[in-house]
Amino acid sequence: MALIVQKYGGTSVGSIERIKKVAERVIESSNRGNKVLVVLSAMAGQTDALIEQSKEITESPDPRELDVLMATGEQVSVSLFSMAVKSMGHDCCSLLGFQAAIHTDHIYGKARIRTIDSKRILRELDKNGVVAVAGFQGIDEKRNITTLGRGGSDTTAVALAAALKADMCEIYTDVEGVFSTDPNICSRAKKIDRISYDEMLEFASLGAKVLDIRSVEFAKKFNVPLHVRSSFTENEGTMVVSETKEMEKVMVSGVVFDKNEARVTMAHVPDRPGIAFKIFEPVFRAGIVVDMIVQNTSVEGFTDLTFTVPIADFQRTIALVQGVAKDIGVDTVVGDEEIAKVSIIGVGMRNHAGIASKMFETLSKENINISMISTSEIKISCVIEEKYTELAVRALHEAFGLGDEKAEA
Amino acid sequence: MALIVQKYGGTSVGSIERIKKVAERVIESSNRGNKVLVVLSAMAGQTDALIEQSKEITESPDPRELDVLMATGEQVSVSLFSMAVKSMGHDCCSLLGFQAAIHTDHIYGKARIRTIDSKRILRELDKNGVVAVAGFQGIDEKRNITTLGRGGSDTTAVALAAALKADMCEIYTDVEGVFSTDPNICSRAKKIDRISYDEMLEFASLGAKVLDIRSVEFAKKFNVPLHVRSSFTENEGTMVVSETKEMEKVMVSGVVFDKNEARVTMAHVPDRPGIAFKIFEPVFRAGIVVDMIVQNTSVEGFTDLTFTVPIADFQRTIALVQGVAKDIGVDTVVGDEEIAKVSIIGVGMRNHAGIASKMFETLSKENINISMISTSEIKISCVIEEKYTELAVRALHEAFGLGDEKAEA
Repeated sequence: MALIVQKYGGTSVGSIERIKKVAERVIESSNRGNKVLVVLSAMAGQTDALIEQSKEITESPDPRELDVLMATGEQVSVSLFSMAVKSMGHDCCSLLGFQAAIHTDHIYGKARIRTIDSKRILRELDKNGVVAVAGFQGIDEKRNITTLGRGGSDTTAVALAAALKADMCEIYTDVEGVFSTDPNICSRAKKIDRISYDEMLEFASLGAKVLDIRSVEFAKKFNVPLHVRSSFTENEGTMVVSETKEMEKVMVSGVVFDKNEARVTMAHVPDRPGIAFKIFEPVFRAGIVVDMIVQNTSVEGFTDLTFTVPIADFQRTIALVQGVAKDIGVDTVVGDEEIAKVSIIGVGMRNHAGIASKMFETLSKENINISMISTSEIKISCVIEEKYTELAVRALHEAFGLGDEKAEA
Repeated sequence: MALIVQKYGGTSVGSIERIKKVAERVIESSNRGNKVLVVLSAMAGQTDALIEQSKEITESPDPRELDVLMATGEQVSVSLFSMAVKSMGHDCCSLLGFQAAIHTDHIYGKARIRTIDSKRILRELDKNGVVAVAGFQGIDEKRNITTLGRGGSDTTAVALAAALKADMCEIYTDVEGVFSTDPNICSRAKKIDRISYDEMLEFASLGAKVLDIRSVEFAKKFNVPLHVRSSFTENEGTMVVSETKEMEKVMVSGVVFDKNEARVTMAHVPDRPGIAFKIFEPVFRAGIVVDMIVQNTSVEGFTDLTFTVPIADFQRTIALVQGVAKDIGVDTVVGDEEIAKVSIIGVGMRNHAGIASKMFETLSKENINISMISTSEIKISCVIEEKYTELAVRALHEAFGLGDEKAEA
């Protein structure tokens, strides 16, 4: 008898009808002889509606009370789901964060799971065969309700799978799995059957919204096999697993892009020790996440410094950096919001030479100028003009042979 | 420094604007030097909306899961309220049933409070001055969520007041207090300033919807002074307290009525031991609450038996009783849904003679026929035709001198 954790996202439980469908699916899985631990998100739109309600009270709601409010979303999902399962003649029991004993630190809105005391979950699984745990929520050491932040239900599912040593953690979503690129802009995009944790981490951090990045880190750390699949079909999805020799044979497994960054450039920066610190310290202190940083080799004691930040933080960043610029004698701070970051990902890069040059060549052939480059062991990212995004993605997808042959016809 | 429990019902927190008003009111009370423990109901309409949602899943939702769902209503109220208080610069902390340690039995949907471990509440009151507890909910010994049934927030408030030995339990609602009769049908109805627990119990059980009856029993048992008042005005409401000598001077304190009952009559019932048991046993077993029962003195070995049940259970009751009728040789079972029960209430009845005859005389003068009579120490109820309800109430209100002189002009 296998123990399976199944996580269903907001669209998968987005209506009463959808909840009933999920209940049927879970019962089928149980009837095949599995114990099924179900983790649910709030019904689609619910989380936003609750945030909206809190904003009507005050623009900056108290973080503790906001978590109490937000936690009701998943509470509604698990209770309705458990009712549905029971009305279909199968046992089921819902458990909230405090009942499932999901203990977190006390950072409201962004709590991290510390421990899970699985006694009650195991007891209810033995008794009912199916147990529904509210995703996204836990309790701190004083029994205050905490939430794990957006995408937190993925983390709940993976953490439970790790704690219970589940045989599989299935992440149900509204897409068929992880694709070689965004099917909306490249019709030949192909579903990836198997992918390594590290590749998935790059996919997640580079804007593919299939899985929350913390849950992938967790899965990697505890070696939890993930199966990302659609709750709307019966098709197999993408397995996210430990790296295998086979995976390295593939040069590139996917192309991703991100249009949500903006670029800031400081020209003619005096090349002195401590300059980078001076420039970035106020930005970091403001809680702004800097992604790529590129600094050219100094020419005659001066250098150019370019970095990217989320578009939402662009104006704030420019203001902060202009403040520093005066102090260090830099005249020119320019920014550009109309950029895109296009990246190729693949563990095979480690063993294949010339992948970077092939990427540059492909973009060059399409007359796309590269303004920034950054590389990691299994990823190459290029910043280009935003308007070329789709062209670049399709060209790279083609060049690295990622297309689905069937779709070619 | 006084400790005050304030309970606000659904209409009092029925909108974001109303929640802010309540927050202001609570802060004022705190600033006058009180510790304020606030108990909140779900926002008006929320409880019905949740029930509606569960009905879309299944007609008979699982009771345990229904309680998990219902408990979100009060969770939303206390979190929004606490945000509002904090946004106004005053400390506050919300506590749910499991955090406030409100321990109940395990009868889902109708749980009864067993104990309250007030340690955390007291700690948070010391720290914040204001604490908001979710009404209506608790946990059983296995930490399952339970709810106390409709009106349960009143019980939560009174139980907390008793456990914490509060100086006062204020019940805020959308009316000014307890009235001598329904102001909607009698313009001269007068707000009662002071009333005894026993009278309040009769008011509550006879259909005046101001206070949940269990909360009054609780208040009487632990001698918790209640103040029923409006959250929409600053006016004093009705004090519900232990009986005093003064109260007995008043013959009658109020007139109430109830149109939600129906009457069932069995004619020519053989007057044998065990007959009443035979007739009522299936009715009780079906969970139907029988209110008045009248049996006439036997004539020639036969008697007539009449009783009242809630209109909602009328058809079921008729069917059950007809089943029994055959067994015991009774031909005639008749029912009537168009009845009303009109009652006068007052602790003064104990010391005043002739109150019943004055009631009968008053109804007789208006040509209203009485079909059933039932009395208790502090109450007389008459069943009449429904269409005479308003006439009867106004006549009795006048006859016992309950009118507000000011409204007479």
